[in-house]
Amino acid sequence: MNMLVDGEWRTDAYEANDGDGSFQRQETTFRDRVRDDPDATFQPAAGRYHLYVSYACPWAHRTLVTRALKGLEDAISVSIVDPYRDEDGWQFTPEKEGCTRDHVRGADYLRELYVEADPDATCRVTVPVLWDKREETIVNNESEEIMRMLDTEFDDYANRDVDLYPEGYRDEVDRIIDEIYEPINNGVYRAGFATRQEPYDEAVDDLFAALDHWDEVLADQRYLAGDRLTEADVAMFTTLVRFDNVYHTHFMCNVQYIREYENLWPYLRDLYQTDSVAETVNMDHIKEHYYTTHPDVNPHRIVARGPDLDFEAPHDRDELPGSPPADLTAASADD
Amino acid sequence: MNMLVDGEWRTDAYEANDGDGSFQRQETTFRDRVRDDPDATFQPAAGRYHLYVSYACPWAHRTLVTRALKGLEDAISVSIVDPYRDEDGWQFTPEKEGCTRDHVRGADYLRELYVEADPDATCRVTVPVLWDKREETIVNNESEEIMRMLDTEFDDYANRDVDLYPEGYRDEVDRIIDEIYEPINNGVYRAGFATRQEPYDEAVDDLFAALDHWDEVLADQRYLAGDRLTEADVAMFTTLVRFDNVYHTHFMCNVQYIREYENLWPYLRDLYQTDSVAETVNMDHIKEHYYTTHPDVNPHRIVARGPDLDFEAPHDRDELPGSPPADLTAASADD
Repeated sequence: MNMLVDGEWRTDAYEANDGDGSFQRQETTFRDRVRDDPDATFQPAAGRYHLYVSYACPWAHRTLVTRALKGLEDAISVSIVDPYRDEDGWQFTPEKEGCTRDHVRGADYLRELYVEADPDATCRVTVPVLWDKREETIVNNESEEIMRMLDTEFDDYANRDVDLYPEGYRDEVDRIIDEIYEPINNGVYRAGFATRQEPYDEAVDDLFAALDHWDEVLADQRYLAGDRLTEADVAMFTTLVRFDNVYHTHFMCNVQYIREYENLWPYLRDLYQTDSVAETVNMDHIKEHYYTTHPDVNPHRIVARGPDLDFEAPHDRDELPGSPPADLTAASADD
Repeated sequence: MNMLVDGEWRTDAYEANDGDGSFQRQETTFRDRVRDDPDATFQPAAGRYHLYVSYACPWAHRTLVTRALKGLEDAISVSIVDPYRDEDGWQFTPEKEGCTRDHVRGADYLRELYVEADPDATCRVTVPVLWDKREETIVNNESEEIMRMLDTEFDDYANRDVDLYPEGYRDEVDRIIDEIYEPINNGVYRAGFATRQEPYDEAVDDLFAALDHWDEVLADQRYLAGDRLTEADVAMFTTLVRFDNVYHTHFMCNVQYIREYENLWPYLRDLYQTDSVAETVNMDHIKEHYYTTHPDVNPHRIVARGPDLDFEAPHDRDELPGSPPADLTAASADD
């Protein structure tokens, strides 16, 4: 691994594991906020902000799904990095299928944006990044916070009337996002990057206990927070959609497939089939990234075949209480 | 890896992969036969022959299953090596659960037996080994040949009237053993030990095409060769029983679990539940061996949790034409 240390790029400067063999995720660094407030430094606007993402990364994927559900494609532009991350970190390889150039700065490496935002940056260079073209800096690189900003601060520029953090559900949404983070979203990484048996076993126990729990919850309600599609579902979706093809084998989360779960699997298909979500899923990038980027886990960098998942199969979850926001339902019906 | 070269133990002398990244299995070396023939050097007898096996190894497991189905436990003794194979190869660690000492020679390492059999041995040191206590040498270390000898040459010393290579089925049994070897029995290794994408992809294609084929065949008949339990089933069993917990994840044969197959999964349970077979299956040894012995594939040697398989669940395959040999059926009914 590698990171910026005082603005200098260092290879192998990042130690992902604690002394006890458990994976420790480092804090993200840029935590400013776009706020729909005349006094805010970063105010919402169309054309001002730019997202840097990898299709492979589940954290970045949250922001892409939110942008799509809100219809913010015209207001917030996006650059897509190469799914293969080598010693030099995330990079731009526009010649590669599904990748783009850096539309804003023409950088070769994502780290250049970090140094431009803070010449003394000392941090991992991660996606997503929300970039402010006017101030020429990084607003934020924390996925939950970017997801929340796109969801709540850009309504004047959104093409759809979609609210993923609705009044009356907010405490529950925050609670669920928090509750699923450690065992599920980060849990797959704790399992996959453990270097000793005990932390792996703990991670797997936590992960499948949590999946079993939510599978039960989803027997009676369409979405995690009840009858409304919310940010909590977005947060769950980007882990579940990678699970059977990546986490299950590459991170040895192999107790069962998501497709074997009675409710989680139809729930995953339901989200996938929600209008505009499918276009944010690039399974080739997802598989290439994980299997080729972690030689510590997969030394020969062979991309595992994985199960053939039919995300388009009927899910029948519209029989449960709840439906997607009207704008999305309408759009779906046109398909 | 390591092997004997002119009777000397060499570490890293064994290159499992061809230049093209595909796994190449080396030939076994000792190919004599026990024959029920007064002129034979190695004639069947009770107490004369000894099997060296690992519970982990599917090839060795074939000989253990055959010995159990025939009721040869009293006639042919067995030593069990440590499932963890390090730089020094297979070894005897009687203090470890499920392992035994070398009952014949008191050796610490299996390679000592090879050198004793042939001081100039140049070969991999593998299990199973059929040892002749009288001539103090290795008769054979090729699993199919040992399976056949135990099945056909020791009937005078077997406690059960079980014939796994019956007249009228022999061509078919030979054909099936040969047909499943490359795509299935060896196919999982070809997938797991490939060091480049192309040979992996070929192995996975071959493997799942073959599994799909046999799943169809087994819809209408109880056993691979039809209505009789044969050596072909033994050869298939030792790969299938390891599949979901080891090959699926460790060797990235992850298109689907055996437990997801409509017929292969009940077929596997049927074989497992055939009297005396279950006692030959040591899943702890199987998992420990694979996950901890191949750092090239699994650098941190973490043992993956794997699915919880209920091998004892009803299989309903007795509704198909065919039944196990009478001696086994009777014994099963007593359980």
